[in-house]
Amino acid sequence: MSYMMYKELSKRISKLIKSLQIKKYRKQEHSFFVEGAKNTEEILSTGYKVTVLVGTADYLDSIAELIAKHPEMEVFVADEKQLGALGTFATNNAAIAVAEQKDFEQPSLDEQEFALVLDDVRDPGNLGTIIRIADWYGIKKIIASPNTADFHNPKVLNASMGSFSRVSIHYTALPEFLAAQQAPIYGALLEGDNIYNERFDQGGFVIMGNESIGISDAVKPFITHQIHIPRIGGAESLNVAIATAVICDNIRRP
Amino acid sequence: MSYMMYKELSKRISKLIKSLQIKKYRKQEHSFFVEGAKNTEEILSTGYKVTVLVGTADYLDSIAELIAKHPEMEVFVADEKQLGALGTFATNNAAIAVAEQKDFEQPSLDEQEFALVLDDVRDPGNLGTIIRIADWYGIKKIIASPNTADFHNPKVLNASMGSFSRVSIHYTALPEFLAAQQAPIYGALLEGDNIYNERFDQGGFVIMGNESIGISDAVKPFITHQIHIPRIGGAESLNVAIATAVICDNIRRP
Repeated sequence: MSYMMYKELSKRISKLIKSLQIKKYRKQEHSFFVEGAKNTEEILSTGYKVTVLVGTADYLDSIAELIAKHPEMEVFVADEKQLGALGTFATNNAAIAVAEQKDFEQPSLDEQEFALVLDDVRDPGNLGTIIRIADWYGIKKIIASPNTADFHNPKVLNASMGSFSRVSIHYTALPEFLAAQQAPIYGALLEGDNIYNERFDQGGFVIMGNESIGISDAVKPFITHQIHIPRIGGAESLNVAIATAVICDNIRRP
Repeated sequence: MSYMMYKELSKRISKLIKSLQIKKYRKQEHSFFVEGAKNTEEILSTGYKVTVLVGTADYLDSIAELIAKHPEMEVFVADEKQLGALGTFATNNAAIAVAEQKDFEQPSLDEQEFALVLDDVRDPGNLGTIIRIADWYGIKKIIASPNTADFHNPKVLNASMGSFSRVSIHYTALPEFLAAQQAPIYGALLEGDNIYNERFDQGGFVIMGNESIGISDAVKPFITHQIHIPRIGGAESLNVAIATAVICDNIRRP
């Protein structure tokens, strides 16, 4: 198989990909794109329906076997300059892939399972980093408030470093969702119990709050286990992704 | 005290501050700047020699007591638009302060003290976040390779969220530095021991590696305690700031 088989990048496809940088069009097309070799190979390998692949000739040749697994996918050749102009990467010498969004249903927890609950985590970089952390610590489910950054934002997907394919995210109003849960609901609050004394043996939900205001007043009443990460020095707070990592590590240690 | 006493922003000062965005000029002037209310108040309160303060009339009025503690400081009034044009913030309704760099000497460890060693951490956001994490966990000393991001880069200082004032950083060639140390030297390597079984009761140095290649081959031989953070899920790695936080948390827990 050689790149000579593939079509040249068309205006229609360029327009499609550029439009998918904007949430409104991602919703309308029920699609999104990923960029770079790592994310492209991730999305071609993990059960997503990939509709369009645009790559450099060399790169397309190098992943011919993966391409063969997607017979209905449209494949186009482009040079690095064209790829750079289409996506958000400063340089991209591999590819951009367009895929259909998955519909993540409202999750329920298995016994002793943990899920993250994001209460207006607005920064795409933070959300992507949190997805990567969840994936590292084997947490597969995220529930997010409607104002949390969009899972399909290219900045989120890029910051997730490929982990987007192993973590589901369901957007919903948190008070209603939390009110219906039986499992423990953990939330980090200044007046919470020392996390080092917590046992975390029942599973449950871990709420992470907004970058500026933390956990919102509408969500706080649903916390059944208030926790805090002890501070030794002078910093006023930890970034939400950093706090997520520390809490996940405390949950997972034996 | 009222803002009426202060001079209008001059071309000389504008030029100075803009030049300090560049490392070469920061070195030449032995100075740097911070932006925003939090960092301005931090630097006016923590033993730095602040030479220039540019702020909005309202903001300068609000910190009159702090200004009075720096009688040799030149103070200028500017509007928000001028502040935005001078610094790196999209909006700044408070101030920019220029201060002399401190010279951080090569640190030695007290008994049971921990210090971080950064082996080419290149991203300014990562360095700033690591400084904030160090400050949260009461780690006051960082040793950094010459190619690590510059401590006085505005992006580093901003990401540190004020913690820059409580953490020192000393740039030096790491192999020579580490060769002279007696304390334990920890490094995260894939083949390292499970961090949850480590005792961390002697203090020592914790090496964090470059964003792409991790700890360099020139530095690896100096590691006396290889550790790793157990992974449960599918992510290939953790971001260096995230890993720093998890390691610091493991060090500090009783």
